[in-house]
Amino acid sequence: MSEPGSHADRMARAALTWLAEPGNRAVWTLVQRVGAPAALERLLAGNLPDKWLQAAISARTAAGDARQMAEEAMSRADEVGARLVVPSDPEWPARVDALARLEIDSGSRVNRDTRPPLCFWVRGELRLGAALDRSVAIVGARASTGYGTYVTNDLAYGLAEKGWTVVSGGACGIDAAAHRAALAADGVTVSVLACGVDRPYPVLNAEMFAQIAERGLLISEWPPGAEPLRHRFLIRNRVIAAATAGTVVVEAAARSGATQTMSRVLALDRPAMVVPGPVTSAMSVGCHELLRKHPYTRLVTSVADVLEEVGRIGEYLEPPPRGRERVRDRLDEESALIMEALPRRGAVSAEEIAAEARLDLRTVLRRLSLLEAAGLVVRTESGITLARRGG
Amino acid sequence: MSEPGSHADRMARAALTWLAEPGNRAVWTLVQRVGAPAALERLLAGNLPDKWLQAAISARTAAGDARQMAEEAMSRADEVGARLVVPSDPEWPARVDALARLEIDSGSRVNRDTRPPLCFWVRGELRLGAALDRSVAIVGARASTGYGTYVTNDLAYGLAEKGWTVVSGGACGIDAAAHRAALAADGVTVSVLACGVDRPYPVLNAEMFAQIAERGLLISEWPPGAEPLRHRFLIRNRVIAAATAGTVVVEAAARSGATQTMSRVLALDRPAMVVPGPVTSAMSVGCHELLRKHPYTRLVTSVADVLEEVGRIGEYLEPPPRGRERVRDRLDEESALIMEALPRRGAVSAEEIAAEARLDLRTVLRRLSLLEAAGLVVRTESGITLARRGG
Repeated sequence: MSEPGSHADRMARAALTWLAEPGNRAVWTLVQRVGAPAALERLLAGNLPDKWLQAAISARTAAGDARQMAEEAMSRADEVGARLVVPSDPEWPARVDALARLEIDSGSRVNRDTRPPLCFWVRGELRLGAALDRSVAIVGARASTGYGTYVTNDLAYGLAEKGWTVVSGGACGIDAAAHRAALAADGVTVSVLACGVDRPYPVLNAEMFAQIAERGLLISEWPPGAEPLRHRFLIRNRVIAAATAGTVVVEAAARSGATQTMSRVLALDRPAMVVPGPVTSAMSVGCHELLRKHPYTRLVTSVADVLEEVGRIGEYLEPPPRGRERVRDRLDEESALIMEALPRRGAVSAEEIAAEARLDLRTVLRRLSLLEAAGLVVRTESGITLARRGG
Repeated sequence: MSEPGSHADRMARAALTWLAEPGNRAVWTLVQRVGAPAALERLLAGNLPDKWLQAAISARTAAGDARQMAEEAMSRADEVGARLVVPSDPEWPARVDALARLEIDSGSRVNRDTRPPLCFWVRGELRLGAALDRSVAIVGARASTGYGTYVTNDLAYGLAEKGWTVVSGGACGIDAAAHRAALAADGVTVSVLACGVDRPYPVLNAEMFAQIAERGLLISEWPPGAEPLRHRFLIRNRVIAAATAGTVVVEAAARSGATQTMSRVLALDRPAMVVPGPVTSAMSVGCHELLRKHPYTRLVTSVADVLEEVGRIGEYLEPPPRGRERVRDRLDEESALIMEALPRRGAVSAEEIAAEARLDLRTVLRRLSLLEAAGLVVRTESGITLARRGG
């Protein structure tokens, strides 16, 4: 097996990704067994036992020479300042290798062609692994509503501000809102593309992609020049799911791409977070479907909720809101009424409290003993008074 | 023990409910053991081992004679056309007796004073048990939004139209919207009050209460004349939870009454359904809290979702939406593109399909074999064609 990370290894991985779509189970397995250069040779030699794979590879080889395509991709990458990252590189994002452990269920679309990436083409100065270490994916509908955009802004800005990398797919709608909010917060954002990093798609977001290349990362499994074919978005989605500490879906139509991403997040046992919305909005139907059908999806409404799901305890967790409350703020309704009924100075009887609070005496008596135990009221010979704190 | 359902039994239950708030554990347990008349005697005799209960009962007896109060309540009930329903009556709603089995956890507010009702005062012609047999509670915020009102209308109208009784608490906001929509659908609605059925509260809904008394039921554990004291709403909520096949919370502020009702629904192991809303709405915060904190709450978005939770299989269930779809409607994105790429008549090659569908050949080849297996396409010597159905 040739040296991992050698020039031969890198070029073979680039060629393999051109030859067969990333994530292909047979190709990935072969690479694991014999190394990328030998795997490439075997695929190009033909006579593969898997007839469909053979047909697909024949179609590609008819269109060009894989090794030459890899050379061209590498030159094009140099031109746009992109680099090829392979698993033996220090900046390889190890988390994506969890895809190798995905349960295989050939009947399910989720588990077909979901093997780990062979390589990433990367544009941007940050180290890929470091950028993805503390990362959350925020994905959703292209046809987002004002509500979805607002919530995405809020989440992405807040997460970026707290040092989390915001990962998304660069599409219009929710994806773009997530990237833009992270940029606005002067945070890090990574766009995982389904085409070459030299021609990010859609063109409408060109200015945004330029900013991401400048201050974050544009990454892709496909070589420079690759087109954003429709099926590639589904293949790409597994990387968004696997590269991040958790994924948030903000708005999604029924049976949409975001739903498919979430199936992979769930299969990987990563936090699968969903923002609810009005049940009257078509753009929240997919979100509610996820929450109804998958018991392990988690409803999130805020940055704090997201951090609760992905944060390591004690490190990223916000102090729980209750921690900041005073005991008085946690009282039940009846106890609160009793506290309000007590005069600031002087003592009163339980009957007077009951009249003032419009509660029956029995309730007042019971609550008073609890309030006394909590140190909030004091019973004296002249009646019940508020406990004094610090004078 | 005096005959259950006898005049003595009925009068004693009426008196007991005036003497101690409904749901009181000690009182209910005593009634179960010795019957209502003997329990009443014992409570009036004083020297109870439970000091708090003794204090509460002393406060009440100082205000009036329990037996005389019961007589007066009965006369008042006659005047307004109300009747007293006790557990031995055929129309007693047996479901509420599940409250006797609630787990006891004295530390939790939910499980304090949650024993079954001793009796119900009922206004309206329908039989109580029959009206509640197929019933769903819809409850929520008084300060509801337009969104909450809209969703409530939709759910309550739809359920009432399908023959389900809509139960709620008669409050402004979501409760009133639920009652009104059920009335508008010419359905049955039951309002569970926290005061006498002769003076339904709030007055703002007086016209609605009159209609409910006419076409549905107004019910209460408290005797005619009883005031809607604040703590009574919490006691009342356990009846809403226990009398229905399931409860839906539409809008709820953080830590609100609806949240407390839901704790009881969950403790009773009944379907606890929650309608999500915009995370930007304060009136949905309680709903999202419930969905986040309680794994057994179920997110619902429509009448069909509610029926799926409460309906008995095969009897009330809507045919699942997928059942109505044609095979073609269930195709994944890529297969759908391939189907669209096929001409209505004549055969094409896989390469032509790939070009037309903007998919790579490999994907097309794979999908085609699946589509062929599904009987949607046919491979002939001249190429691939759409399968013809029925000529």
